[in-house]
Amino acid sequence: MKRFKKMEPVDKGSLVDKVEVRLLAFFKENNLKVGDAIPKELEFAASLGVSRTVVREALLRLRTLGLVESKKHRGMILKQPDIITNFERIMDPTLLGEDVLKQLFELRLILEMGMVDFLFEHKNQKDLDDLEEIVAAEEALSYTANRFSLDREVAFHGKLYQISGNKTLMGFQNLLLPVFEYKYLQEEKKGKGDYKYSKGQFVTHRMLMDNLKVGTPETFRNAMRRHLEPHFDHVFNPPKG
Amino acid sequence: MKRFKKMEPVDKGSLVDKVEVRLLAFFKENNLKVGDAIPKELEFAASLGVSRTVVREALLRLRTLGLVESKKHRGMILKQPDIITNFERIMDPTLLGEDVLKQLFELRLILEMGMVDFLFEHKNQKDLDDLEEIVAAEEALSYTANRFSLDREVAFHGKLYQISGNKTLMGFQNLLLPVFEYKYLQEEKKGKGDYKYSKGQFVTHRMLMDNLKVGTPETFRNAMRRHLEPHFDHVFNPPKG
Repeated sequence: MKRFKKMEPVDKGSLVDKVEVRLLAFFKENNLKVGDAIPKELEFAASLGVSRTVVREALLRLRTLGLVESKKHRGMILKQPDIITNFERIMDPTLLGEDVLKQLFELRLILEMGMVDFLFEHKNQKDLDDLEEIVAAEEALSYTANRFSLDREVAFHGKLYQISGNKTLMGFQNLLLPVFEYKYLQEEKKGKGDYKYSKGQFVTHRMLMDNLKVGTPETFRNAMRRHLEPHFDHVFNPPKG
Repeated sequence: MKRFKKMEPVDKGSLVDKVEVRLLAFFKENNLKVGDAIPKELEFAASLGVSRTVVREALLRLRTLGLVESKKHRGMILKQPDIITNFERIMDPTLLGEDVLKQLFELRLILEMGMVDFLFEHKNQKDLDDLEEIVAAEEALSYTANRFSLDREVAFHGKLYQISGNKTLMGFQNLLLPVFEYKYLQEEKKGKGDYKYSKGQFVTHRMLMDNLKVGTPETFRNAMRRHLEPHFDHVFNPPKG
């Protein structure tokens, strides 16, 4: 039997997809920077040999992604894309699947365990004073010590993210918060929201704070790991049903 | 003088913005799930009292973000948004500012330090065999032991991300890789790419692997921290100029 050469599949990518890629390449090749004006729709349409509608749709996409914006009297300019804003619209927990929710929940634990070196590098007296205030306030409310409460978690851990000095990281924390809250409420509805400690010593926010004051990244990481134990336990030994 | 009541600022949000928000609310209120068909452009336009063009533009945005997709004969359906794909287009290092690049570089260190518990929870014999192969291959190439090489970093650390079992995390790693490479090449161009060890013991990939085999999350985290020391040093004590 005659052996045929392998056929290349037909390119099914849409025109808009192709124009989008070409526009991005154009920005790079011309070394355009944030704030620079870009050519008009009509010019792109002429250069690329496509309709103005196609160019318009590709530019709309880039605008949706925050890569370009329209300025009065200047047409469109390049914009510093805001990574976090891009996430916000799609991070609605009710629109995400169970598996992605679980991964995002895990991601939050990963970030808190991972950012410790940055806390020790950037902490200052003002930060420690703020933390002291947060811890004192929650102690005054005298919650049951070993019961999980979302509000005090947010106040304390949000401050830690802030100390890390990384704005992108802080943005992630804000995005992950609704996921965290949603998962917690979900479990609580099923009567499984009462986080229990399966092992190890209970590490309070005060103990973490003291560790941040006088400890090292190593001691703080171990303390944080024990503090997060109920959540790790929840992830590694999920409640049945 | 007569004190006037404070005036509310005029709502300047665009019609498309408003329609986008209303569409998302509609999906939630009707408890629509991934795969469900949504009403047609014309119906939305009639219900919301806006033009079909406005609805179309809002739907295009949602399509760009991966929240809806067009299906033949079914119109538009809800889609599980792919968090990572959304990032991909805007994560071109040449389009990001210096500050964001630095934050993303730091984020990679945070993820590697933070994911350790998941490595120990999910590792199996196959994973350790794969790692052994990767380490043996790089040793056979006999790179200078304490010189940073992007390729072997990617092979080894990419495998670790895979062992973590978290697909969103793996997606981030893939997104951060170009940033990492870009920053490295940038430094090298300036003659500052020769990562040096400022302190501590040099921890090789083999040592990390052995630690993963017989150690604990605590010992592995300390080893990983020392392994990443050149990068932390680079972030905390950036070369001048």
